[in-house]
Amino acid sequence: MSARDTVEIGLNRFARRGYDLDEVSIVPSRRTRDMDDVSTAWQIDAFRFDIPLVTSPSDAVVSPATAIAVGQAGGLGVLNAEGLWTRYDDPGPAYRRIREAAGDGAPPVAVLQQVYAEPVKPDLITSRIKEMRDAGVTTSVRVSPQHTAQLAPTILSAGVDLLVIQGTIVSAEHVTTQGEALNLKEFIADLDVPVIVGGAANYTTALHLMRTGAAGVIVGVGADTYSTTDTVMGIRVPLASAIADAAAARRDYLDETGGRYVHVIANGRIETSGAIARALACGADAVQLGEPLRAAAEAPAGGIWWDSVAAHPRLPRGGTSAPIPPAGSVHDVLLGAAESADGRTNLFGALARTMAKTGYRDLKEFQRVDLVIGGYEPVQDD
Amino acid sequence: MSARDTVEIGLNRFARRGYDLDEVSIVPSRRTRDMDDVSTAWQIDAFRFDIPLVTSPSDAVVSPATAIAVGQAGGLGVLNAEGLWTRYDDPGPAYRRIREAAGDGAPPVAVLQQVYAEPVKPDLITSRIKEMRDAGVTTSVRVSPQHTAQLAPTILSAGVDLLVIQGTIVSAEHVTTQGEALNLKEFIADLDVPVIVGGAANYTTALHLMRTGAAGVIVGVGADTYSTTDTVMGIRVPLASAIADAAAARRDYLDETGGRYVHVIANGRIETSGAIARALACGADAVQLGEPLRAAAEAPAGGIWWDSVAAHPRLPRGGTSAPIPPAGSVHDVLLGAAESADGRTNLFGALARTMAKTGYRDLKEFQRVDLVIGGYEPVQDD
Amino acid sequence: MSARDTVEIGLNRFARRGYDLDEVSIVPSRRTRDMDDVSTAWQIDAFRFDIPLVTSPSDAVVSPATAIAVGQAGGLGVLNAEGLWTRYDDPGPAYRRIREAAGDGAPPVAVLQQVYAEPVKPDLITSRIKEMRDAGVTTSVRVSPQHTAQLAPTILSAGVDLLVIQGTIVSAEHVTTQGEALNLKEFIADLDVPVIVGGAANYTTALHLMRTGAAGVIVGVGADTYSTTDTVMGIRVPLASAIADAAAARRDYLDETGGRYVHVIANGRIETSGAIARALACGADAVQLGEPLRAAAEAPAGGIWWDSVAAHPRLPRGGTSAPIPPAGSVHDVLLGAAESADGRTNLFGALARTMAKTGYRDLKEFQRVDLVIGGYEPVQDD
Amino acid sequence: MSARDTVEIGLNRFARRGYDLDEVSIVPSRRTRDMDDVSTAWQIDAFRFDIPLVTSPSDAVVSPATAIAVGQAGGLGVLNAEGLWTRYDDPGPAYRRIREAAGDGAPPVAVLQQVYAEPVKPDLITSRIKEMRDAGVTTSVRVSPQHTAQLAPTILSAGVDLLVIQGTIVSAEHVTTQGEALNLKEFIADLDVPVIVGGAANYTTALHLMRTGAAGVIVGVGADTYSTTDTVMGIRVPLASAIADAAAARRDYLDETGGRYVHVIANGRIETSGAIARALACGADAVQLGEPLRAAAEAPAGGIWWDSVAAHPRLPRGGTSAPIPPAGSVHDVLLGAAESADGRTNLFGALARTMAKTGYRDLKEFQRVDLVIGGYEPVQDD
Repeated sequence: MSARDTVEIGLNRFARRGYDLDEVSIVPSRRTRDMDDVSTAWQIDAFRFDIPLVTSPSDAVVSPATAIAVGQAGGLGVLNAEGLWTRYDDPGPAYRRIREAAGDGAPPVAVLQQVYAEPVKPDLITSRIKEMRDAGVTTSVRVSPQHTAQLAPTILSAGVDLLVIQGTIVSAEHVTTQGEALNLKEFIADLDVPVIVGGAANYTTALHLMRTGAAGVIVGVGADTYSTTDTVMGIRVPLASAIADAAAARRDYLDETGGRYVHVIANGRIETSGAIARALACGADAVQLGEPLRAAAEAPAGGIWWDSVAAHPRLPRGGTSAPIPPAGSVHDVLLGAAESADGRTNLFGALARTMAKTGYRDLKEFQRVDLVIGGYEPVQDD
Repeated sequence: MSARDTVEIGLNRFARRGYDLDEVSIVPSRRTRDMDDVSTAWQIDAFRFDIPLVTSPSDAVVSPATAIAVGQAGGLGVLNAEGLWTRYDDPGPAYRRIREAAGDGAPPVAVLQQVYAEPVKPDLITSRIKEMRDAGVTTSVRVSPQHTAQLAPTILSAGVDLLVIQGTIVSAEHVTTQGEALNLKEFIADLDVPVIVGGAANYTTALHLMRTGAAGVIVGVGADTYSTTDTVMGIRVPLASAIADAAAARRDYLDETGGRYVHVIANGRIETSGAIARALACGADAVQLGEPLRAAAEAPAGGIWWDSVAAHPRLPRGGTSAPIPPAGSVHDVLLGAAESADGRTNLFGALARTMAKTGYRDLKEFQRVDLVIGGYEPVQDD
Repeated sequence: MSARDTVEIGLNRFARRGYDLDEVSIVPSRRTRDMDDVSTAWQIDAFRFDIPLVTSPSDAVVSPATAIAVGQAGGLGVLNAEGLWTRYDDPGPAYRRIREAAGDGAPPVAVLQQVYAEPVKPDLITSRIKEMRDAGVTTSVRVSPQHTAQLAPTILSAGVDLLVIQGTIVSAEHVTTQGEALNLKEFIADLDVPVIVGGAANYTTALHLMRTGAAGVIVGVGADTYSTTDTVMGIRVPLASAIADAAAARRDYLDETGGRYVHVIANGRIETSGAIARALACGADAVQLGEPLRAAAEAPAGGIWWDSVAAHPRLPRGGTSAPIPPAGSVHDVLLGAAESADGRTNLFGALARTMAKTGYRDLKEFQRVDLVIGGYEPVQDD
Repeated sequence: MSARDTVEIGLNRFARRGYDLDEVSIVPSRRTRDMDDVSTAWQIDAFRFDIPLVTSPSDAVVSPATAIAVGQAGGLGVLNAEGLWTRYDDPGPAYRRIREAAGDGAPPVAVLQQVYAEPVKPDLITSRIKEMRDAGVTTSVRVSPQHTAQLAPTILSAGVDLLVIQGTIVSAEHVTTQGEALNLKEFIADLDVPVIVGGAANYTTALHLMRTGAAGVIVGVGADTYSTTDTVMGIRVPLASAIADAAAARRDYLDETGGRYVHVIANGRIETSGAIARALACGADAVQLGEPLRAAAEAPAGGIWWDSVAAHPRLPRGGTSAPIPPAGSVHDVLLGAAESADGRTNLFGALARTMAKTGYRDLKEFQRVDLVIGGYEPVQDD
């Protein structure tokens, strides 16, 4: 199927060689272009965005208010339908407890486990969605595959524009001997709203998820800097390779259906503007960002970061971060002038400049930019 | 014999390219499964275990009491028949001396050398085995190849269920010009109890050890994080490759004997639940764990770790660790709900989840899971 | 076009494997030579230099006085025509503000943005060039591609010997829909002075820039230790590979024109005498140095380093350094006896010794020296 | 000439892939052996040694007294004929000055430059050699290629057993336009004592040095942990590959001469017993050790280390170390029981154990042991 490196780790036991985003980089081509001639616009189904951004559904960075701010800045904010905002009428005390447990350091995972022990309340899902709709932005919430059947009716009747069904690993074929598993294909066929589903880790899973009728597939297992999925479960998805494989699935599915284009949304250690550019260059249509948004003044956890899996009751697979001071508003982080050179503000302005300096006009063209492996240059802080 | 990478390091001098467990990881396949449908059971000879765990015979973590606790949690505890529990009627003062020499740091290796200078007492072997048998768990002790001939009669008459003959490196063909070497094949043929033997480092040694009639072969030289076998002796066994090679020997021996299945037990830097999953994914039937058990409240050395070779009188090949606070009971470490995301508790619950998320029902199936090389993602503590 | 490694990062998505200077090293051949028989001379157009050195146009290290000192030591000093010396009649207060903001650490990038907000004054360009000319050294200034059309008349009438047109990435084909882009080929054809232009990142861009009529092409995007072009823009140029590719373009262009030799000037993390030797060994004719010159007592920023892109108003792509104490004069740094073994003084004396120990008489011969990849030996400071 | 990896770093510019000792390791074979049946003996010309050890001619570790102690322990001590012991009648004050300049840290290189400014005195060469001869050990001194013609008569008439001609890089063909270069071949032909010469970096240089009539060739440029030859000169010699290449030259020269066996002596970052085993496994006949001997109580610089090149008057290429406390006598370091597991004592006892555990009887057999690349396991100190 491919000439990609296959390694024989021992006699007759093979592994594929995968590449992470850090290992891949962009090479300028022979043309340059004016920044004013560059567009970073992204459209999925009927929804158009100025920037190819979907937020992670992490309570650390997404409240209804930040989801609205992201929407106003041109991206898609995704609220977790199974997070603090739907477990608590007022999640303020829960956030405060986490921040106090943190002090200047990282809050213990056990504190997250405790505040997430509170059950999800369907009427809060309804009111959170209403709050976002009323602001006039494209509205989206995330639900886990396990609770999709139970929570979807509430979510849909509240009126979301895009539904995100997301777990660490989602397959099109969940096998169970106890009761009935969610049949994604049938479920999606019955829906009126487009669905984004994932994460997927390779060509096959991505292709099968595309065949469920999803509008977008999330690639990657959300392995950000604080993730420990690798340490806890031995599971690792080299993201550059996973994106490229999913882009191949997109092409093959396009051919197989005679024209259905399913979007590939990259999710992993995408924490700088450079990483955003790399992910799109490898073939993604958009990126799912979480951790970088904690630098926004509006971030509800005050600069602390955790991914949803950090709160798992029996097997947390992600750590928490210490708080950082805000670097500006949501808009500043995404599009404002940067006052530092660390790739963590003006995230999408930087993308536009990379496109200009390599001579590409739009994201679809930019997916063909030249790539190089090697020559990683660590930054010195001094 | 293989297409595995061979490197010409200089003119006509070749080396094989080996991979360590850290370098290999698991890729989710297109199917997922309910955790309740997954089994981590392992059976060797007539003995069945809920989890594929053999302990390292290190006095740092295995006392008769912890061996019993491991057995009750579903694994196999292995007491060192040449360790502190068979050198001292009451090993308490020896442990205390080590802990006091450690303070908040790591105890000097010289202190280990001193407490291990006391001779082994056969009657203590008998009473320790009896203590474990009386608790009703599968009973096992480890003896070195050098002392097997001398100590085996005592061990066997005390009634062990499984005998572990283990040194850093054990071969089926030990050459000596002085007296007579232990003939493993004849020795094992005469025994009534199944034998686990090792460590072996490659296909050939593993195959020859299988031909001795052993029920299980230990692969790896016990190179945990504190091991210095590489620095002291220049010997290194990239564990992922060694496991895969031994699994190939297992297949070839199965074919050669028309059906004798010898178990491959991986021994090396297996210190997280992720590493356990990787070792089994590479082809191991079970793992030999030592260092992670020091987090158990019952660990006799109070959270300090050392491997047996650290106490060698002339050439120690392993360091000692500083103490760590307990993270729970032996059962908690192996199966309890984790309150941190570091892969060091709920070790085998995590394995079951990995199997579920990749769609496998049992360990034998799981040995076929897809592997990937590359994309290692370091965890940030912040 | 080449047998160089191409990697399939995912299905049908390829990347080239590039090598950084750090990864490549020089292997002594079977001959050695007396240092007195070695020449490091470099000639571009009518200008001859004792050492193959072009300075970075960074205000951190190049004032008119240091440009003169570099010229007197045998290299080419390049003043930034869009830097502090042409924005301020007396740049002293601007430098002091940066140094005070630094204290013992690195000054914030925002301070640079502020001092560079002052507009460039054409009459200062004239007077700075006059100051350098009067000292009798070869005179050169740098202008950005965006401002070349506007500032070149002033620069040329002030009488520079060599014009440097340099941006992070410069292409021979800049596309714009707004107004007219600078046509480098026509611009250079009309000039009486030779032009050095860059940076270029690969064979194609280098070849196209050679075809503009430039006397020299800068290869690399200036990615020094403090650069964050990779983090901010996802752009990386493994320098050893980029130099070798540009040297191939030089050969092909020489053939295509029947004899026009365009010089390749390497620009990147060249911060030690070892890196200078590596860059030339990979095929460069000269190196562009910035950061190492901050060790000179005459460096105007008192030992602080920043590259021009660190001052960008919206997207800075480089950090700043803390100050270091001076290690000697400009002459000492370039050619004086070293009193430490860190490769940061006697930069070009070391080059001569490398050439002698590998048996080469001049730089053109030295470009053929044997190279090795691997075996990087980190230095321990203890 | 070889299938060893050749890498195209850029268009038509190639580099060989070399391996350092750290990257290569030893794999146990299917046989083990008793330690008592193992011999580490080495014979060069008429001189037999119990251990394959030649010391670096560094004043940091070799005085006449330590040379004698090394000889009594079974190795070959080499005194620097151009070091402190031949520049000063009493080198005590020079050593004291270095130690005082060090304090608890590393002494500045400039202090070395100052104490080495004193000229070499031929009559001191004579008396130092006499002192070593009188102790009854095999006597050897090192002279640089530049001073061989001048100092050799004094050295030879004082009665050395083995002459070491050593510089960082020595070639069989030194080209000069000023006066006459030393013709090694004619020089060695006229001598009555065997000569060891080096360093050489590859197959060709090693072969040419063998053809000079030398009894032994030193391979490597002395790149120990404190070396900065790479940083200062851009020169690097991946040692595992260089040893293997020199061993190939040894075989080819043996064939070409119908039986002259020239010994390969490895010199580089060989600082642990593991590295000694690796170097011999790659094909060396003996190792040249310096830095590890500073742990001996007799080391004249009190635990500080520097290589000869650190004292170079214009271009030092090595740093200095902070002092370490003694770990025992010269004999203890080489052969005594180790009280720590860091591979820095019992250096040659460990070699014997590695040979036993891999089943080899003598060094010549051991050169065929299986090697593996990869799986490097860093040691944690905790």
